[in-house]
Amino acid sequence: MQKISVAIIGWGNVGRGCKRAIEECSDLMLAGVVRRSTSLNKEEPDLENTRVVDDISKLGKVDVALLCIPSREVPERVKEYQSLGICTVDSFDEHDRIVALKKDCDINAKAKRVVSIVGAGWDPGTDSAVRAIMRIVSITGRTTTTFGGEEGGRSMGHTAAVKSIAGVKNAVSLTLANGRGKHKRRVYVELLPGYDEDKVTHAIKNDPYFKMDPTEVLVVRNINKFNTLHHEANIERTGMQVNQIYDVEGVNPEFTANVMVCCVRACITAKHADQYGAYTFIERPLVDYLPGATLDEKLADY
Amino acid sequence: MQKISVAIIGWGNVGRGCKRAIEECSDLMLAGVVRRSTSLNKEEPDLENTRVVDDISKLGKVDVALLCIPSREVPERVKEYQSLGICTVDSFDEHDRIVALKKDCDINAKAKRVVSIVGAGWDPGTDSAVRAIMRIVSITGRTTTTFGGEEGGRSMGHTAAVKSIAGVKNAVSLTLANGRGKHKRRVYVELLPGYDEDKVTHAIKNDPYFKMDPTEVLVVRNINKFNTLHHEANIERTGMQVNQIYDVEGVNPEFTANVMVCCVRACITAKHADQYGAYTFIERPLVDYLPGATLDEKLADY
Repeated sequence: MQKISVAIIGWGNVGRGCKRAIEECSDLMLAGVVRRSTSLNKEEPDLENTRVVDDISKLGKVDVALLCIPSREVPERVKEYQSLGICTVDSFDEHDRIVALKKDCDINAKAKRVVSIVGAGWDPGTDSAVRAIMRIVSITGRTTTTFGGEEGGRSMGHTAAVKSIAGVKNAVSLTLANGRGKHKRRVYVELLPGYDEDKVTHAIKNDPYFKMDPTEVLVVRNINKFNTLHHEANIERTGMQVNQIYDVEGVNPEFTANVMVCCVRACITAKHADQYGAYTFIERPLVDYLPGATLDEKLADY
Repeated sequence: MQKISVAIIGWGNVGRGCKRAIEECSDLMLAGVVRRSTSLNKEEPDLENTRVVDDISKLGKVDVALLCIPSREVPERVKEYQSLGICTVDSFDEHDRIVALKKDCDINAKAKRVVSIVGAGWDPGTDSAVRAIMRIVSITGRTTTTFGGEEGGRSMGHTAAVKSIAGVKNAVSLTLANGRGKHKRRVYVELLPGYDEDKVTHAIKNDPYFKMDPTEVLVVRNINKFNTLHHEANIERTGMQVNQIYDVEGVNPEFTANVMVCCVRACITAKHADQYGAYTFIERPLVDYLPGATLDEKLADY
């Protein structure tokens, strides 16, 4: 069976996680990594034996591009790759804009006869799928999602948002549980020389990613001692006569990268069925994300 | 919006649960209940204001039939309703025969231009979907499902299997955890007069539902004090750097009935898209099981 050819766009934590995840999947192969031209000559042991280019056209045939880039750049880049005839997967994480993103990318996907899976990280993404299942098991009830626990977990979207604010040299944004289903944020930032602590703090607190939640900003000299890749979520649904709990904890980029990489299969399955379009994670059948050459193999754990 | 017309086939615990679940769904309506003719004149408060017939043709237009009958009768009955142009949902529970059932019913579904969702209870069914999600979040790892906990939970499939054995007046079969991912069975049976305890016990232990697990059979005078509708499952996956746990506990027929009733929507969505065929629960998109008149409503919790 011919392997699916995958490109990684962006070389941050998620991009690195995607490379590792692709290596775990015998049906996928890494065509290469696309980085900004300014990063091309950096030597990194993880990129030995990997093609690194500044333009995807230099990689030859690519079936699916994994957009491991900040959420805010996703909408434009999805359509750019679609227009090249390449399927895309992203982990766009702004819950209230995902349906609009899907609809926008859906039109272009159909025109270009490709498939995009949008908002396919863990939340939104697989956590959304768990919430859907919980609603099916218990039709009437209440679902809450609590992130980060008491220790806090690294939010990649929020961390990327802080890093894009003027004056920020480095940052990590933690999400902490603040009661069931409620959250607060704690942001550690290293400033660039000459920037004012109060102004940067104000900019962070008023960023769309933060302004809905209680947010504490702590300026530190060295981010490293506050940095973490850990995250966790707890989803609970209490129904009429049924209770359900889902807990996930571990290294955040690993969750996200694994989900994105499994979406590659769903893109190709949909494309082969001429079901061109843009889909959220729960709009494609779960079976399409699983490995296996035959339906029997894919359903072996059913 | 016109409501989807649903018939309940069989009036056991799951059939009763389906009636309650349909009443929770504003997009569905109960056309009636199909029972054996010998049961038609039994008066039951739960069936007041409900049409009860011995043949589905007496109910007028039915879009989807919910097969709330013993698993062993499912394969034949699916095809019977398909041939009447009616979609079906069942909770067939023999894991190792589901793919064969799906393939068998798929041919007839395509010929009759209907949709069937097979094996759509909680396990197989939504638990299978949780296992699929866990494999997506953590590509490499080990998943175990443990049923019943230390107290034990009622297995509906096993209980129905015991009840079908000659000499059994009434029974309840409990599943108990026997170490992580392992199980044992405890069966309480009331015998009919004149039947031999040892022969019935032997028949139970050699039934395909039981012969793979350690099984204890206890003959009792009155089943009622041992009866329960409670059940629970714990699914765990430990991955390279990710751990996941899903726990569900509550009233077993409620889980099963809710899942079956949500499958009604997925049948109709697939039928309207001309995607005739038979599908396991994870072969249809999760979004198709959710309520909502528009995609925005269905994705509101994404």
